[in-house]
Amino acid sequence: MTGTPPVFDAAFRSQLHDLMRWRRDVRHFRPDRVDPGALSRALDGFRLAPSVGLSEPWRIVRVEGDAARAAVRTNFETANADALRGYDDDRASRYARLKLAGLAEAPVHLAVFCDDATPKGAGLGARTMPEMRAYSVACAITCFWLALRAEGLGLGWVSILDPDRLARDLSVPADWRLVGYLCVGHPADEEPTPELERLGWEARAETLMSEVR
Amino acid sequence: MTGTPPVFDAAFRSQLHDLMRWRRDVRHFRPDRVDPGALSRALDGFRLAPSVGLSEPWRIVRVEGDAARAAVRTNFETANADALRGYDDDRASRYARLKLAGLAEAPVHLAVFCDDATPKGAGLGARTMPEMRAYSVACAITCFWLALRAEGLGLGWVSILDPDRLARDLSVPADWRLVGYLCVGHPADEEPTPELERLGWEARAETLMSEVR
Repeated sequence: MTGTPPVFDAAFRSQLHDLMRWRRDVRHFRPDRVDPGALSRALDGFRLAPSVGLSEPWRIVRVEGDAARAAVRTNFETANADALRGYDDDRASRYARLKLAGLAEAPVHLAVFCDDATPKGAGLGARTMPEMRAYSVACAITCFWLALRAEGLGLGWVSILDPDRLARDLSVPADWRLVGYLCVGHPADEEPTPELERLGWEARAETLMSEVR
Repeated sequence: MTGTPPVFDAAFRSQLHDLMRWRRDVRHFRPDRVDPGALSRALDGFRLAPSVGLSEPWRIVRVEGDAARAAVRTNFETANADALRGYDDDRASRYARLKLAGLAEAPVHLAVFCDDATPKGAGLGARTMPEMRAYSVACAITCFWLALRAEGLGLGWVSILDPDRLARDLSVPADWRLVGYLCVGHPADEEPTPELERLGWEARAETLMSEVR
């Protein structure tokens, strides 16, 4: 499969910049259903993503059942209660409530795992850095995230979870390790500024680069 | 900072799909210099990337000096010799030579680390999954990669390296962990099919999703 390489012009780059600027970690969703066609097109982000040795170690589980979703919610509440003990102001609990809202509201839930035992790719590029497989999954989630945003959909990445417990609750194979629990749906509002920044939790910094001469 | 949310139409989505399809892990570079403006614009991919708790744990070191580049090359050669012992055909060594070519030819080298000790974000979202910080760096590299491709530039991600040795050789702080060693430049050729697939190493699969009801 070849073809003529596409040329990306300044207008496209400007739109790509806008896409990245308006990609948010979404915590409030409208209850509207997600169009299966749009979701399917965005899932191409996985198929087109880079992976170490072409190992494509991502494993996606769509979590639909009430019992499974309740288990995720309990998992989050337990992990969150533990986490909150470490903070002495109320900002963390405000933030946690937002995340919980995302879990309750998002119509589509995807648990994305890394299969560290995959034979695909024959281990190429992962000997000294086996974590490259999980990084590949994070890269693929990023592509999916951007593609979702281009469809007008939003994603919230939940990590306040006990990953081993989640894997057990969803009965996935023993070699699968949670990379992200993703809430997907139509964002209730759209903002170019991260919610954590608007809440005063943390601000964006400039990207600095050092140099070794 | 607010504004009107942009609308991304089918034409943009089609171009975004092309961008992802033509993003490659590049191993052959032309010697042409990289325009600093284009590199700087692509680095916005880091500034706009998602990160757990807005921790922005990416640390970018541009590797310019001959001694530093020689240390990286020696590191690669050692790690690669170890890795090749595990394969009984010659495809791995062919692949390894390609990667080495990338290291020799790419005009820009960036070592990207994760700072696991950053106070930024106050640990939010990283208590049960501390690996979320490194995943955030992988997400940011993905945004950078796509932005580079939109500038006509290519990236090759080298992971056949001893990450601890690299950190020592580049004298980075003890808490910084290598996520990716990135070769950046003008690709010598452009292909929508991964080189590993063209070489017969591994093929792309369809993305499958299972479901928990």
